[in-house]
Amino acid sequence: MTSKFIPIQYVDDKLLLLDQRKLPLEEIFIQYTTLEGGHDGIRDMVVRGAPCIGFTAIFSLALWLKDRQYQLSEFENACDYLNAARPTAVNLAYEIGQVKKIVKKAKDNNEDAYSAVVNYGHEQIALSETQNRSMARFAEKDLDALLNKKKYNILTHCNTGFLACGSIGTALGVVQNLFEENKLEMTWVDETRPYLQGSRLTAYELSKLGAPHQVVVEGAASYLMSQGKVDAIFTGADRIAANGDTANKVGTSNLAIIAKHYGIPFYIVAPSSTFDMSLKSGDEIDIELRDPLEILEYKGLRIAPENSTAFNPSFDITRGGLIEGIINENGIAKGHYISSLRDIIQ
Amino acid sequence: MTSKFIPIQYVDDKLLLLDQRKLPLEEIFIQYTTLEGGHDGIRDMVVRGAPCIGFTAIFSLALWLKDRQYQLSEFENACDYLNAARPTAVNLAYEIGQVKKIVKKAKDNNEDAYSAVVNYGHEQIALSETQNRSMARFAEKDLDALLNKKKYNILTHCNTGFLACGSIGTALGVVQNLFEENKLEMTWVDETRPYLQGSRLTAYELSKLGAPHQVVVEGAASYLMSQGKVDAIFTGADRIAANGDTANKVGTSNLAIIAKHYGIPFYIVAPSSTFDMSLKSGDEIDIELRDPLEILEYKGLRIAPENSTAFNPSFDITRGGLIEGIINENGIAKGHYISSLRDIIQ
Repeated sequence: MTSKFIPIQYVDDKLLLLDQRKLPLEEIFIQYTTLEGGHDGIRDMVVRGAPCIGFTAIFSLALWLKDRQYQLSEFENACDYLNAARPTAVNLAYEIGQVKKIVKKAKDNNEDAYSAVVNYGHEQIALSETQNRSMARFAEKDLDALLNKKKYNILTHCNTGFLACGSIGTALGVVQNLFEENKLEMTWVDETRPYLQGSRLTAYELSKLGAPHQVVVEGAASYLMSQGKVDAIFTGADRIAANGDTANKVGTSNLAIIAKHYGIPFYIVAPSSTFDMSLKSGDEIDIELRDPLEILEYKGLRIAPENSTAFNPSFDITRGGLIEGIINENGIAKGHYISSLRDIIQ
Repeated sequence: MTSKFIPIQYVDDKLLLLDQRKLPLEEIFIQYTTLEGGHDGIRDMVVRGAPCIGFTAIFSLALWLKDRQYQLSEFENACDYLNAARPTAVNLAYEIGQVKKIVKKAKDNNEDAYSAVVNYGHEQIALSETQNRSMARFAEKDLDALLNKKKYNILTHCNTGFLACGSIGTALGVVQNLFEENKLEMTWVDETRPYLQGSRLTAYELSKLGAPHQVVVEGAASYLMSQGKVDAIFTGADRIAANGDTANKVGTSNLAIIAKHYGIPFYIVAPSSTFDMSLKSGDEIDIELRDPLEILEYKGLRIAPENSTAFNPSFDITRGGLIEGIINENGIAKGHYISSLRDIIQ
């Protein structure tokens, strides 16, 4: 089964990107026919989320290769140009490296590099969905074993669906899978201040799926849990340390602590690339401090007094001991993470 | 000592109200010289907060009495008219009743009712400050006994300062008192979604005082506490039950649970009028559900997709067991609230 909603498409030798800057109020696909176009789409954040940037890179290089006679050195210049679109994006550099190998091999074997790269792009999107669906089934199985309910009320934080991941996503992939299995009662969507990824992006994804959802302020977490309105919480992760400590969008750790208080299971869902077993604990992860204006303004409208400032940590660390299970494409780790995580990192 | 910042003033036979609808970006006092003006100020929410509405009612009736020959029945009609400005505001009806008694007594004794009512208004504002300062000192004493620090980092939620209370306020009165005693290191101001009372009003109050403060999103609570950046949390209350369970702005209960997790003391500060000993527990308090648009829009700008909705509980219940102390003008209750609260309700 392929997800219907993919923000990156390559159709009739053209790249289509859903303009995420315009969401959720406008739904516009921008069509690209050149490497320069794809470069600008990445640079200008038409596309976001590590996997999506990687897929866009593959197809942007395909656009360059199409109907072209070239020397390998010219192709490498094109790669360098593309990599400069967002120099710190790990998936961008990774996929450019993969495409370089494919092109070199095709050249060596006198094969069609363009087709090989396009195929690789489609394969990577399909692989991402296979992996996301695998995570979603591990989550469903664990929920059933733990709670054995017909339908679940899920709370989630930030944005982890097809807009972030290209396919069904990580934590939101769990929600989509439950919805497709007719096992989703309600999705509580944390609006996720200050950048409102929940109300802008996650609510959009769930709207497109037609899945039940309601946006809530983060302050409502304890109220919802105290009323029995939440069966489980699923979030994604930015980085996971060897002891299970997890860095994710600020507010995640609040949820895990409140869930523990009410005895509600809290899960992390993330691909293997998120795990960093060289980190002993979350204490080794730096927390990015972002622009105070994200809190003090909305769309250029000032909220707070002009002489007030804000403190804006972008992430927090959820301690492994608060997490019921950590799920990746290979399985679910539980309990003593220092040993259990090794079983799902292959 | 009288607080410098009072949003309601009665000077030279005129009522001045700080227009709270324009804060924090514009600071405008509106001048009223008639009962009709005061009525509209209450109805149109120029003034808000239970105590402030009560003070405004007293002075509005004074404006009606000024230089007037009248029958008692005409005065009672004026009272009914004023009460209709916000029929559900308890303090409005209460102060109108008090003014009725004062006017009747003055009439009976052939005394000047106008002066008596104006004096009563000033006395009520002064009494409110005396009571708020008393609460603030109980809080300071308990902090010193518990933590014995030279300076404190305080986290607060929603708006409880002079804009809400007329004088220094409840939870924010604690902050103001610490600041005046040179014992305030930092105030972390929860922005308090969805209505942003923290970033709009509490940040304004602290700016006016010149007190150190930074606005934070509610999601940052666990991060701040995990980093040792919070010594204690103080919030106000809407209603307090006999077992210490406290209804307050949604998100308060989140803070109390997270504070317990980190071993950080969480306090409630509220006047006696907030306590309802007829309620056995917080389970008897109804939680108001408010307009989803408060979450889905900002100043008329849509945030979420048009076909998404929101769930907007306005309050939550913080269990007594999570609260280090409950403070009113008579003292601080601790431990077993069913007995300790009786000692401070006189």
